[in-house]
Order: sequence, then C-alpha cells, then structure tokens
Amino acid sequence: MREVVIKALLVDPSNNTPVVLLKDRASRRAMPIWIGEPEAMSIAFGLQSEEFPRPLTHVLMARLIEGLKASVDRVIIKSCEDATYYASVLLRDVNGELHEYDARASDSLALSLRSGCPIFVAEDVFDDSAIESPFADEDEFHEFVESDLDLDVFRKLSGGSGRGDSAREET
Amino acid sequence: MREVVIKALLVDPSNNTPVVLLKDRASRRAMPIWIGEPEAMSIAFGLQSEEFPRPLTHVLMARLIEGLKASVDRVIIKSCEDATYYASVLLRDVNGELHEYDARASDSLALSLRSGCPIFVAEDVFDDSAIESPFADEDEFHEFVESDLDLDVFRKLSGGSGRGDSAREET
Repeated sequence: MREVVIKALLVDPSNNTPVVLLKDRASRRAMPIWIGEPEAMSIAFGLQSEEFPRPLTHVLMARLIEGLKASVDRVIIKSCEDATYYASVLLRDVNGELHEYDARASDSLALSLRSGCPIFVAEDVFDDSAIESPFADEDEFHEFVESDLDLDVFRKLSGGSGRGDSAREET
Repeated sequence: MREVVIKALLVDPSNNTPVVLLKDRASRRAMPIWIGEPEAMSIAFGLQSEEFPRPLTHVLMARLIEGLKASVDRVIIKSCEDATYYASVLLRDVNGELHEYDARASDSLALSLRSGCPIFVAEDVFDDSAIESPFADEDEFHEFVESDLDLDVFRKLSGGSGRGDSAREET
C-alpha cells in the first residue's frame, strides 16, 4: 500500500472531465483518476474548506458517521479493472471494530477530505498509472490551488448539484 | 406533518431541471421540488430499483448507516426559505436513540428510497406549494413510470456521475 494525498483537481480539456491527481507521499510520482462532476465539486470545496450554505452529500455522510460515534479510519483504492477503480471505505465503530464498504474512488476521496482520514492505493494500481508529478513541493501546490483552481468551473460543470434544492429554479 | 411518497420524477422543460413530485398519502395533492441532477439520477435509479455496477453515493450512505447498526427512521422537509428547502434526516442508533441531521431535501429523498423510510413534509410547506396531482391512483403512476420515465435522460443530464470512476474516460 502507498499513502497518497489529493494533490490537485483539474479538468481534462480533451473531454471536459474532472481529474484528481493523487500524489505519493514518499516520492514525486502521482496518479490521475477521472471522476464524475458532482464528486469533483465536492472534492473541490473540500480542498478549499469552503462550505456551501446547505450541506453537500459527502458533508452529510461525514456528519452521519460522526453522529453514530464512528470514524473514517482510511480509504483504499484497491484495484482497477476495465478502466474502473474499485475502492473501500473503512469505518471504525464506537467499539473500535473496523467495517469495510465497497465504494467508488470518487466517493472515497470526497469522504476522506471531510473526515481527514488517510488515503492508500494498492502498489500495483499506483505503478500502472503513475506519472511524474508536475508539483515539486507543497508550496507549488498551494500556489496552484490559489491561482488556478477555479471553483466556478466546477459550479458550472455540476449544473447546480451543490445548491440547495429549489422551490423553483430561475429559468 | 404530512406523510408523502415520491410520486414522480420529471424534467422541467423550461429549464431542463429535474423535479420530484411528492404526493400526499391522504389526498390527491402533491408538491414539486426542483433538485440537482446527481440527486435526480440517484432518485431515478432508486425508484426503479435499478443498481449501477458501482455503488452510487446514496447507496454507500445507506450501507454505512446499516453497517453501524443504525437505521433511517424518517426524513422530514421542514421549511422553505428563499426558495430553498430545509430538510432533516433522522437516524435511530443501535441503542434506539434518535439523531437529527440537517440535510438538503434531495439527499433526504434519495436516502429515503435506499432505506425505505417514510417521508414527511411540514403542513405549511406542503400547503404553500401543493398542486392537484396529475395521477389519480397508483396504477396510473406505475404506468407512467414504466412508459415515460426515461432513465437515459438522467444518465445524460448527470454527465456520468453514476458510472464507476475511470482510469481514462473515452473522448
């Protein structure tokens, strides 16, 4: 297992799809994962610690877990088959017991940001898709997030999923 | 409080936004709620009991709750302010204690479908936006869902959020 951090959230210009860049903690290598737009928005706001007026889905999920006196121990990206990632969310319940749940990688990453838990990737999965990270150090990353990560892109992409539910949308 | 059921999921042609129709159990009246596309897709698949190859976000949420030996007791749409609905999810923990969580109406409805819990709406909220339901009885509803509810509309709208996360999207 390799511990990674969410290093960047970008939009692939070739197909307008969000990409999460997961960087190995122990090297400069990173792996990309293409994800859905709602999860990308949740990750974008999680990265910037920005809160919506109404709780986003993964914020609600983290609060439910916390309210039941459990915690997210870690999330693991375990395998990749037919270009689809398979991940697990591991919860520790009030008695200290671990529970493992099959999950999509995007939900796992969005939940990890809300709970602050570590993210692991299986060695073979990481090695198969790893690239050299474009970011040399943490400073460059923060600079990138502050200057280039345009949340409006995700707001627009998500088509309003993060907003409160409306009695009537404006036309 | 008024108990309602999710009676239909439609797309408002004026702005291409999904609408959930909540029907009063005790009358023919119903109220519409305009929601986001990812939640609409989750509700659409929940209504037809169709499963994605990978767990959708609200399926994961329901499994986490169940795994922690809690259950969704009910969801309540409590108020509407500035055209935004405020809802609550009520969980019953392993000791029988109730926990209330602030939530968006769309997340509450999607979670109710996965857990089978009842849905309530505050009287004043219901009365403010209720309309006469276009569906006279259950038979008409089932007919409508089978003939007119086109899941491809939601697949298309959601831009792939329900799919597994990809190593690389097709361009």
